[in-house]
Amino acid sequence: MTYCVGIKLNAGLVFLSDSRTNAGVDHISTFRKMIVYEQPGDRTMVLLSAGNLSISQSVREILQVEELKERNADGAPITIWNATSMFDAARVLGAAVRHVYDRDAESLKHAGVDFNVSFVFGGQVKGEAMRLFLVYSAGNFIEATNETPYFQIGESKYGKPVLDRVLTPDTPLEEAAKCALVSMDSTMKSNLSVGLPLDLVVYEAGRLQTDKIVCIDADNPYYRMIHSGWGQKLREVFDSLDDPVWDDAATEHPLKMPAARHAVLRKITTPQERLI
Amino acid sequence: MTYCVGIKLNAGLVFLSDSRTNAGVDHISTFRKMIVYEQPGDRTMVLLSAGNLSISQSVREILQVEELKERNADGAPITIWNATSMFDAARVLGAAVRHVYDRDAESLKHAGVDFNVSFVFGGQVKGEAMRLFLVYSAGNFIEATNETPYFQIGESKYGKPVLDRVLTPDTPLEEAAKCALVSMDSTMKSNLSVGLPLDLVVYEAGRLQTDKIVCIDADNPYYRMIHSGWGQKLREVFDSLDDPVWDDAATEHPLKMPAARHAVLRKITTPQERLI
Repeated sequence: MTYCVGIKLNAGLVFLSDSRTNAGVDHISTFRKMIVYEQPGDRTMVLLSAGNLSISQSVREILQVEELKERNADGAPITIWNATSMFDAARVLGAAVRHVYDRDAESLKHAGVDFNVSFVFGGQVKGEAMRLFLVYSAGNFIEATNETPYFQIGESKYGKPVLDRVLTPDTPLEEAAKCALVSMDSTMKSNLSVGLPLDLVVYEAGRLQTDKIVCIDADNPYYRMIHSGWGQKLREVFDSLDDPVWDDAATEHPLKMPAARHAVLRKITTPQERLI
Repeated sequence: MTYCVGIKLNAGLVFLSDSRTNAGVDHISTFRKMIVYEQPGDRTMVLLSAGNLSISQSVREILQVEELKERNADGAPITIWNATSMFDAARVLGAAVRHVYDRDAESLKHAGVDFNVSFVFGGQVKGEAMRLFLVYSAGNFIEATNETPYFQIGESKYGKPVLDRVLTPDTPLEEAAKCALVSMDSTMKSNLSVGLPLDLVVYEAGRLQTDKIVCIDADNPYYRMIHSGWGQKLREVFDSLDDPVWDDAATEHPLKMPAARHAVLRKITTPQERLI
């Protein structure tokens, strides 16, 4: 499996990916799922991939070496290197997905394998604002907005609550990076098929290049602090909430549960009784 | 959708269920998913259900009114009311699932509907220890152990991390009830198809009856405290963790990320370069 998250803030972009791939629990490997495409001063793009590895690798290869059908207004081919907007670059990525679909989907279907792939793709082209896209296996895509400033691919559920609680467009970049790492840590705790090392990129709006790229392994001191600190403090918070107190008396005490009063509604005490 | 959780502790059992059912987002209803079967002093059993509502309702009806094929050693029919063990009662539940399968599965298949149902079923029969089972749509089942003291059915992922962090067989009953409510709150925050009211049962080991049954709606003061307190304190914990600091200098400072040094590994800067 995979867990990747891309976040678009006013201050910039944050991308985080794990690197575990599995074809069954007895066939686990490390494949990194993030690539940065960059011409400093002109464009920075980050691609995260999830799904069938043979498909995502083919898409990434084709994106670089084959001429796809996307054309600009003059009929000239668009590539990710000459696209004048992130939207056009996302179209190129979508075309690459469709190219692989045309080549592989029928054979995969014969083998009983779904054409399953998805990408988070974001960045900035000179002269345009930053943009962040989620590209589906049909090559279509959606764009992040202020209301939905992040996209996840792969095993998204375990790590979603903290993103929802923290992220807004005004979140500072480093805080969003921390949030992505907490989200990843929760995911890795609950799903063995998501694993280290992690790739993290933090991109500052308007810079058109990034030096904040780091590969995080189990020895990374910051990640170790997040891993132990979050678990321990979460437990402290849990302990700090009062336990419920059961009480039959009608009371306004905020921690008392009125016991038994609803019991008859859902309790069956004889074989003849029925309650659906 | 549904979210239900059953927990088996040394001190007793905790059961919690939501009550939202949906057949598409434009067809949401309230159906309660918990039933308590009880002969005080002899047996207390709690049944939680998830999956296709027509199947789970049929199973619950059949469990009460039809004679199933399960027999004891003397050839007499076993019901949940005369079963001498929770294991036998779980067999009766499994037989009820198979009965509905035989009746409905083929027609459902013609309509393109999976035979999808699952149950958490636990309790205590006089003379035996408490037991907790997870019953699958094939009527087979597994039992909770000290290493895995809880079962979830329905939308389980959002609410799993807190259960994993808190629950052990030694967890006190009221703390486990709080944990189940936090787990439910996280699930409801992230999945609109899980909703109030909730049914909560806390059963004390050996009592063979329970008075701690409560239906929790949006006005319940304890649930409101959990809902606002958990979210707010989680945010405080998040804020209390330091943000990462980026630094090129090799340093042992625990919060510094060594930036850029791994950049070349995953960065492509010319169209000719390749990196899968």
